[in-house]
Amino acid sequence: MPVNVLFAALPERWKTYEAPLKSALTAAGVEADLRMEFPPEKVDYIVYAPNSEVQDFSPFTRARAVLNLWAGVEDVVGNETLRIPLARMVDHGLTQGMVEWVTGHVLRHHLNTDLHVHGQDGEWRRYVPPLAGDRGVTILGLGALGTACGQALVRLGFKVAGWSRSPKNVPGITCLSGEEGLREALSSAEILVLLLPFTPQTGNILNAATMAQMPKGAVVINPGRGQLIDDDALLAALDNGRIGHATLDVFRVEPLPADHPYWAHPRVTVTPHIASETRPETAAQVIAENIRRGEAGAPFLYLVDRERGY
Amino acid sequence: MPVNVLFAALPERWKTYEAPLKSALTAAGVEADLRMEFPPEKVDYIVYAPNSEVQDFSPFTRARAVLNLWAGVEDVVGNETLRIPLARMVDHGLTQGMVEWVTGHVLRHHLNTDLHVHGQDGEWRRYVPPLAGDRGVTILGLGALGTACGQALVRLGFKVAGWSRSPKNVPGITCLSGEEGLREALSSAEILVLLLPFTPQTGNILNAATMAQMPKGAVVINPGRGQLIDDDALLAALDNGRIGHATLDVFRVEPLPADHPYWAHPRVTVTPHIASETRPETAAQVIAENIRRGEAGAPFLYLVDRERGY
Repeated sequence: MPVNVLFAALPERWKTYEAPLKSALTAAGVEADLRMEFPPEKVDYIVYAPNSEVQDFSPFTRARAVLNLWAGVEDVVGNETLRIPLARMVDHGLTQGMVEWVTGHVLRHHLNTDLHVHGQDGEWRRYVPPLAGDRGVTILGLGALGTACGQALVRLGFKVAGWSRSPKNVPGITCLSGEEGLREALSSAEILVLLLPFTPQTGNILNAATMAQMPKGAVVINPGRGQLIDDDALLAALDNGRIGHATLDVFRVEPLPADHPYWAHPRVTVTPHIASETRPETAAQVIAENIRRGEAGAPFLYLVDRERGY
Repeated sequence: MPVNVLFAALPERWKTYEAPLKSALTAAGVEADLRMEFPPEKVDYIVYAPNSEVQDFSPFTRARAVLNLWAGVEDVVGNETLRIPLARMVDHGLTQGMVEWVTGHVLRHHLNTDLHVHGQDGEWRRYVPPLAGDRGVTILGLGALGTACGQALVRLGFKVAGWSRSPKNVPGITCLSGEEGLREALSSAEILVLLLPFTPQTGNILNAATMAQMPKGAVVINPGRGQLIDDDALLAALDNGRIGHATLDVFRVEPLPADHPYWAHPRVTVTPHIASETRPETAAQVIAENIRRGEAGAPFLYLVDRERGY
């Protein structure tokens, strides 16, 4: 008997995921029937995008797990009809892509390459940046993504601090936690990278009070979640020079409306939610492995702690 | 008796080097008299910038070595009055700065960050680049700088090939050499980084014929030497789309004249010779160590092979 796997996501995702998921399931030795529609009571596993039509999980009476297609689970973790295990996506391709995006934008601001990308006017603008060892980069969030980015920046020579809710230990990174730790992490953040999950505790974590603790002229890079930033406070800090530049990949509303002040601000770079793109081939392998584990009675990978919210 | 060290460089260099050199010499246990002027026959070591007033070395009858302030020695290596050892600069700070500049610009082109840096007009331009593992980067030149840059790119996940005149072996880098090797190195060069020394063999190594061997639309990054590129051929290749973009830090004439076509070309980024900046503190340590070695009868570090020219 094959296991019935419901692909609960928008139809355009199906196009990119159908083939990789089928071959990953076969490669994992799972005999599966993968479809976009099933009678709910026949579904064994739900591959899930939180913006899909499935918002009520109660009819899925025999389903064993919800396997999220993305890393962020804030739009599903509070769903009260969800009573089965929820796994988030920890995709090697997504992590690698995030490391590349974060490293690229940290180096862009560290080297101030915009000065030359914009300034092709015949003027020889000598600007020699400090070396990475004299540049403080702070990452808020030391989950899989924050840790991988921090380690890549350490390998490039940056002075990296990381902050997380609970204490962590990552070689080469000055790991801080708690409220006092946040103050210390911000105080050395010439470049600040936001990679926290969105939870009731992290909403608006970057606000007027926390930005006041950062070095004047610091750069904010947000590939995490739009809700981490108090947008009005950031715009004010950009206007008064407390923050020197913001490179933002995620927003409360996406696509970012064309009339949003971020687009027009000279010290803001908007990128269109591309830092953390799940790659179908690698993501399919993670989902297939979790279904294999479910069938073998082994523990699921990357289970979400519903109380913490991530 | 102190050793007499002549600082033969332009006066503005003296301002940044005097203090670091004096403390590095003291730290190396060398009792030295460091000045910008000496009677030539009293000079023991010459700290040298090839654009200094000293072009005739014959009056320096007792000098034991010329210690170049920069990595490039092409403007001094052919000087027939120079009959004593010549050491080039291998500065940890310079190497680190080059790694940061090269990695930053490789990531800039890999991620196509210019698309968003230029495109802040309210349009949500989704462009998801391939992962680094699917991006071929080729480095011409596997000396200290090319090797360090290649290793940093390998650590970030790029598919790196390197080419050098004589065969080399660097873990993680596909090392190629010779004429057949050059063809292979160029054929996978979606992003090409030029880090060869300038010698009679490497002049114009990037020309119409070699660019024709690269993938269409490839990017050229030149932090090496201006003479490595046939400028007219590169401009033609940029115009016809064979080369997609060129980011150039070095030029035959510097500062690059304001009316040079590179400035106005939409697919060229000029940076003002900042990739390979010697850092006074670390460079001073290298020079002090070589003087210490000279006084102790130990072999000099980083001697130039005058026949090879580097």
